[in-house]
Amino acid sequence: MKDLINGILKFQRDAFPARATLFKNLADQQSPGTLFISCSDSRMVPELVTQQEPGELFVIRNAGNIVPPYGPEPGGVTATVEYAVAALKVSDIVVCGHSNCGAMTAVANCTCMTHMPAVAHWLSYADSARVVNEARSHASATAKADAMIRENVIAQLANLQTHPSVRLALAEGRLALHGWCYDIESGRIDAYDASTGSFVPLAGHPSAREAA
Amino acid sequence: MKDLINGILKFQRDAFPARATLFKNLADQQSPGTLFISCSDSRMVPELVTQQEPGELFVIRNAGNIVPPYGPEPGGVTATVEYAVAALKVSDIVVCGHSNCGAMTAVANCTCMTHMPAVAHWLSYADSARVVNEARSHASATAKADAMIRENVIAQLANLQTHPSVRLALAEGRLALHGWCYDIESGRIDAYDASTGSFVPLAGHPSAREAA
Amino acid sequence: MKDLINGILKFQRDAFPARATLFKNLADQQSPGTLFISCSDSRMVPELVTQQEPGELFVIRNAGNIVPPYGPEPGGVTATVEYAVAALKVSDIVVCGHSNCGAMTAVANCTCMTHMPAVAHWLSYADSARVVNEARSHASATAKADAMIRENVIAQLANLQTHPSVRLALAEGRLALHGWCYDIESGRIDAYDASTGSFVPLAGHPSAREAA
Amino acid sequence: MKDLINGILKFQRDAFPARATLFKNLADQQSPGTLFISCSDSRMVPELVTQQEPGELFVIRNAGNIVPPYGPEPGGVTATVEYAVAALKVSDIVVCGHSNCGAMTAVANCTCMTHMPAVAHWLSYADSARVVNEARSHASATAKADAMIRENVIAQLANLQTHPSVRLALAEGRLALHGWCYDIESGRIDAYDASTGSFVPLAGHPSAREAA
Amino acid sequence: MKDLINGILKFQRDAFPARATLFKNLADQQSPGTLFISCSDSRMVPELVTQQEPGELFVIRNAGNIVPPYGPEPGGVTATVEYAVAALKVSDIVVCGHSNCGAMTAVANCTCMTHMPAVAHWLSYADSARVVNEARSHASATAKADAMIRENVIAQLANLQTHPSVRLALAEGRLALHGWCYDIESGRIDAYDASTGSFVPLAGHPSAREAA
Amino acid sequence: MKDLINGILKFQRDAFPARATLFKNLADQQSPGTLFISCSDSRMVPELVTQQEPGELFVIRNAGNIVPPYGPEPGGVTATVEYAVAALKVSDIVVCGHSNCGAMTAVANCTCMTHMPAVAHWLSYADSARVVNEARSHASATAKADAMIRENVIAQLANLQTHPSVRLALAEGRLALHGWCYDIESGRIDAYDASTGSFVPLAGHPSAREAA
Ligand SMILES: [Zn+2]
Ligand SMILES: [Zn+2]
Ligand SMILES: [Zn+2]
Ligand SMILES: [Zn+2]
Ligand SMILES: [Zn+2]
Ligand SMILES: [Zn+2]
Repeated sequence: MKDLINGILKFQRDAFPARATLFKNLADQQSPGTLFISCSDSRMVPELVTQQEPGELFVIRNAGNIVPPYGPEPGGVTATVEYAVAALKVSDIVVCGHSNCGAMTAVANCTCMTHMPAVAHWLSYADSARVVNEARSHASATAKADAMIRENVIAQLANLQTHPSVRLALAEGRLALHGWCYDIESGRIDAYDASTGSFVPLAGHPSAREAA
Repeated sequence: MKDLINGILKFQRDAFPARATLFKNLADQQSPGTLFISCSDSRMVPELVTQQEPGELFVIRNAGNIVPPYGPEPGGVTATVEYAVAALKVSDIVVCGHSNCGAMTAVANCTCMTHMPAVAHWLSYADSARVVNEARSHASATAKADAMIRENVIAQLANLQTHPSVRLALAEGRLALHGWCYDIESGRIDAYDASTGSFVPLAGHPSAREAA
Repeated sequence: MKDLINGILKFQRDAFPARATLFKNLADQQSPGTLFISCSDSRMVPELVTQQEPGELFVIRNAGNIVPPYGPEPGGVTATVEYAVAALKVSDIVVCGHSNCGAMTAVANCTCMTHMPAVAHWLSYADSARVVNEARSHASATAKADAMIRENVIAQLANLQTHPSVRLALAEGRLALHGWCYDIESGRIDAYDASTGSFVPLAGHPSAREAA
Repeated sequence: MKDLINGILKFQRDAFPARATLFKNLADQQSPGTLFISCSDSRMVPELVTQQEPGELFVIRNAGNIVPPYGPEPGGVTATVEYAVAALKVSDIVVCGHSNCGAMTAVANCTCMTHMPAVAHWLSYADSARVVNEARSHASATAKADAMIRENVIAQLANLQTHPSVRLALAEGRLALHGWCYDIESGRIDAYDASTGSFVPLAGHPSAREAA
Repeated sequence: MKDLINGILKFQRDAFPARATLFKNLADQQSPGTLFISCSDSRMVPELVTQQEPGELFVIRNAGNIVPPYGPEPGGVTATVEYAVAALKVSDIVVCGHSNCGAMTAVANCTCMTHMPAVAHWLSYADSARVVNEARSHASATAKADAMIRENVIAQLANLQTHPSVRLALAEGRLALHGWCYDIESGRIDAYDASTGSFVPLAGHPSAREAA
Repeated sequence: MKDLINGILKFQRDAFPARATLFKNLADQQSPGTLFISCSDSRMVPELVTQQEPGELFVIRNAGNIVPPYGPEPGGVTATVEYAVAALKVSDIVVCGHSNCGAMTAVANCTCMTHMPAVAHWLSYADSARVVNEARSHASATAKADAMIRENVIAQLANLQTHPSVRLALAEGRLALHGWCYDIESGRIDAYDASTGSFVPLAGHPSAREAA
């Protein structure tokens, strides 16, 4: 807690004044272009990795960067996706996994979850990725976990496509979906290429070439 | 998308090398001390406001910084709280609201949510704050929304106390709960003081004095 | 069944006539002051133990005197609490556990519930008490069950505080919550003192001294 | 609260000593013969009306004496029925409605429940009685509410018959179901006769004649 | 797929022209008299077994011919029953099990369902039949499965009677419920006779004699 | 009922003997190649339209040929899909809508569903198609309903792709998904071509050309 409070004092002394005009303009409104969905993991900071300033990324973070499919009892992720797409009209949604993800490693390794029943229940939303990953052979437990992290991103993109707001925006051509995977040690990001069904370095991904 | 990709290139060129050792150390493990629960709002960046580096904050972000009470069908917030407290053993949980929150303003003003049913469903978890706030008189719609933002933080702290992992950690004296409210325009943070039932500037809050 | 029918005849012959005026006055209305939540257990009769006449106690009884936290799919307990607080405007809610409780003993002893899946599901609402109780050492299985009965009462008081109607009434200062534990063999009642976090004989409890 | 505490002192002084042996025998076990399901209403006290002593009635009380049908997310009523039938092996279940029931009157009159959403949700379990009652003509609003109270008892008996523990006990001939309606003003009880589909005074009901 | 497409060409060439007038009359409306609920099993084709033409049977098919009891989160079966009874006003509902049913055999034999969690969850709606069947002795595993198939039909008839639309139609005397069991090898159908609690050959069943 | 019973007699007399060998072979096993998901509508008989014999089509039928996305409380459709894909290993899934569908017409026209709450709840699984359809302009109410029927088929194909068993089978290249729409009056079937996002006559669809 002491670190946080000292950090806040530092923010107010240093980081805030440098952005005073920005924050003044943002006081009454936001207009982010991207919904960024990533893990709660402390090592993956969306705004740092993408070097975005306040006002630019609408962010969902939960254990495993999971997006449940749409259903009649929508939870927080579904509601936040709906708000981002239907109210804020973001043009892009990024689902971003990361290396060494505790949640996905637990899924890949069938870690006993008896003492964390809520985690176990939540990670069942990665089942559609898990069964695909389990049916393949992997060189090692680490390779299996790495593959699980990527399969999970792909599965969550499929889940996103059951959301009414997402389907509407896709049908109207005003939304693009992206699946990324961030490597903590190297800072590299790979992106999912649906046309080939594989991940490629972001720099070489069609969306990046287009954006360039 | 172009901005994000350029930002990532900038991160890899500038921000990553400056933290290469940090990221190398973090490649295989994390040990965050705090679970920080805040809104998906693009203007409130937890790591910026608290000036924390990767590895320090475990983060949940959703529309309205909501924590559903514990129940038999746990969703993403419940699972992530459980993981943070039971597996990562964080010592502090901060629930941090913010000024001009779209979600809480909608709740305070009874905004029609017919076209965003998932948002409406999710915001019902703020009902216990809403009914308290509605029973009071407010000088203006803005004042009512501001009060709602704070009541919501208080209500989510109550919800947190129904989670088994939280109750256990509280009973064992290894966890503290904090309710904050961040003002976008001024950068100020107010903190909830349960002993008086009111919000006070963080600098003057008992937890800050203790931390100092 | 024969006993019940004979009892009813006895009631109509003896107990009813003595209360005929009372029942006539109650025919079209009720105005109970207290919501009393206790176990379905046949040995703990709320109106007997408190010597209250018809019209005085609004009563919820279920296995384990459990109050689920508030959520979007409210069940019978949540509805009945809402009715008691919002419609009947009771001024007190008592959650009353009891010695030798079959439900809490099963929870404390991890009794296999495979053949009673509904009981197992329902008792998961005592999980936040169970994990606290399990983390402590107990002199015996009986002591562990006794402690569980009390932790459960405390946990249900926390659950109650997520209910909108309860939060509103508490905020308006028109409702008090009480946690009790009744001993079948001795007739003694202990009451939870939140200021010390322990149970004390009801006679010595602040609420009793105040009431005196 | 003062009344309750005085009542408890009176219980300990008068009512308990007279039953000291009974309570001593009950300290470690219960063996009730009947599960009695009635409304939370303060005017209908099961043990008074049936003149039963502690240890004789296992009791469920909730707003509207409702028993949800069995399903995969069982709540408190389902769990308590299962415990009564499968563990305690009760031989009889009584569902007992009562005159002037606030819950059933609200259902019969389509009372606006906007401010009590949990009550509204819970009372949807009386829908199968409501639609039957609404399809009939009634002489007055009171007559409609009275008929609703009875239809509700019949519907809850149907719901009970979806519970595995109940079906098993019925199939083995060791359980009987009863539907009653208690009149507060007169103390009279009518019982449902499935063979004729109508309520008759309990004294004239086959089960009473059999019991006699 | 090739078989299906060839079949469709054959239908368009042969079967359709023979029914062109029928289909023209049915283009804008349907008025089926019966709701037929049977298993998804490929070997039990309702329209073939009953020799009914298009327009005559409204059909629900799912694994195990299951009808969940009515509840606040109604699924597809509940909705389709409601539509059939309340909108289409069918006069009969048939629940039709069949010999060698994979779903019921799995239930009867406690087949491990770990790899099919959705099937396991769904088949819990047959629990009220399973516990009755398990409590009896059976000459062989096959006999146990055969008995399970029949108990399941009986249990689903009980579940149907918790549906508001069904209760209303039964109360108004405009709906009859039927429980059947079809034998694949012999083409025989047995029907449940509620008055005796047993299955009898359909030809000898009261409903058939009445229909004759 | 009389028609059904006469139909069954006719089946036993005529249709069964002609298939006696087939039924004998099917008595102990089934091995259908296709899971066919269509509406409960009496006018659309899958086995007739595709001219398939018993043993060839595993069939799900419900109001609106809906497939909820995968989730932690799976219902009958999810379970039956899982059984078809994981246990029976079907190679094709057809989702087949039909002209003049009452369910989809109700969705397209925003028909009031107050008196059929279960239908309303169930049809919310077509919301992701409804919002897309509503955002387009349609020449008439009929055209709007026709378009809704097709959008619904597309949306259900997206929902199917969240099911673990389906994702696994797709990843392993042993399953194909098909979206069809059947016209009652003409007997014509159009098929969805994902590459163009439109429906084309089945005869001209790639899958048919391939099958030919
Ligand atoms: Zn992670
Ligand atoms: Zn916000
Ligand atoms: Zn108890
Ligand atoms: Zn009542
Ligand atoms: Zn079957
Ligand atoms: Zn249809």
